[in-house]
Amino acid sequence: MEELKEEVIASEEIFRGRILHLRVDKVRLADGTVSHREIVEHRGAVCIVPVKDGHVLLVRQFRLPAGKVLLEAPAGTLESGEPIEEAAARELEEETGYRAGNLLFLGAFYVAPGYSSEKIHAFLATELAVGEAHADHDERLQLVLVPIEDLHQRILRGEIEDAKTIASFFMALPKLA
Amino acid sequence: MEELKEEVIASEEIFRGRILHLRVDKVRLADGTVSHREIVEHRGAVCIVPVKDGHVLLVRQFRLPAGKVLLEAPAGTLESGEPIEEAAARELEEETGYRAGNLLFLGAFYVAPGYSSEKIHAFLATELAVGEAHADHDERLQLVLVPIEDLHQRILRGEIEDAKTIASFFMALPKLA
Repeated sequence: MEELKEEVIASEEIFRGRILHLRVDKVRLADGTVSHREIVEHRGAVCIVPVKDGHVLLVRQFRLPAGKVLLEAPAGTLESGEPIEEAAARELEEETGYRAGNLLFLGAFYVAPGYSSEKIHAFLATELAVGEAHADHDERLQLVLVPIEDLHQRILRGEIEDAKTIASFFMALPKLA
Repeated sequence: MEELKEEVIASEEIFRGRILHLRVDKVRLADGTVSHREIVEHRGAVCIVPVKDGHVLLVRQFRLPAGKVLLEAPAGTLESGEPIEEAAARELEEETGYRAGNLLFLGAFYVAPGYSSEKIHAFLATELAVGEAHADHDERLQLVLVPIEDLHQRILRGEIEDAKTIASFFMALPKLA
């Protein structure tokens, strides 16, 4: 697959932010073609499918880039150096108020590999016990419980508009039978 | 859901690129809290699940933000003003060399709603006929045919590392029986 690879021959930092950095790389393709890639650097994230009594715990959240409220699986950005299991346990409790007795890693995926380095690590959380919700200071969430089969049908009808939620639920589904 | 909404009180443009723009918005939450949101503006995209003789047509592509070759459903960015069905037909032929006799809209999803406006419109493509592949000048792809059930199992084993591919295949699956 060497013929697919790209070599970075220059890199310019455009922006360093709180959740993302932006750079533009000049690349040379295997056949010598030169191009530019606009790249968002992101620390990576976790996404959790929490299941309790036949329901999936989701959160409603206003998403400014979408301009509306979306219904999503709990998720959040990794803190620097944080192991993914710890991040999953932390984000689940922060966003839903539940602690997981059992966290099962489902897999990981890039969400926008054409321009973003963000990789999301997906987990199934079960044996949930009441903990303590404490969202970030600038984060407002509403917890919503959706029966497993309802969520499945809503995804198939195109009513869930968040890729990580759809992908993670799909990977969790065989474990929910 | 008014209590979830955020009001933009200032907006700063950071970068205008070829495939994305970046801005930082100052927002006021319903309770008066002020924060900043780093937002990637993206025109949106299409993703196609092309099926022929029990196989899904996927493409291998080097993704610089991931630092490796990924196996993904054919996809691409909308051109300015382009209807999504036309974009799906165009990207399918450009990337795979096949024309779709039938394109079925499956749904649409945001890929990173925390910081990107990118919305991907997913389609199932069937009745494929040979057309003409012509990737972008700086795009190198390899076509890979994967049996439907193989792809399903590879997703469940966490071997497919691209969210749009997993989400679109999940939405297409009931139509493939």
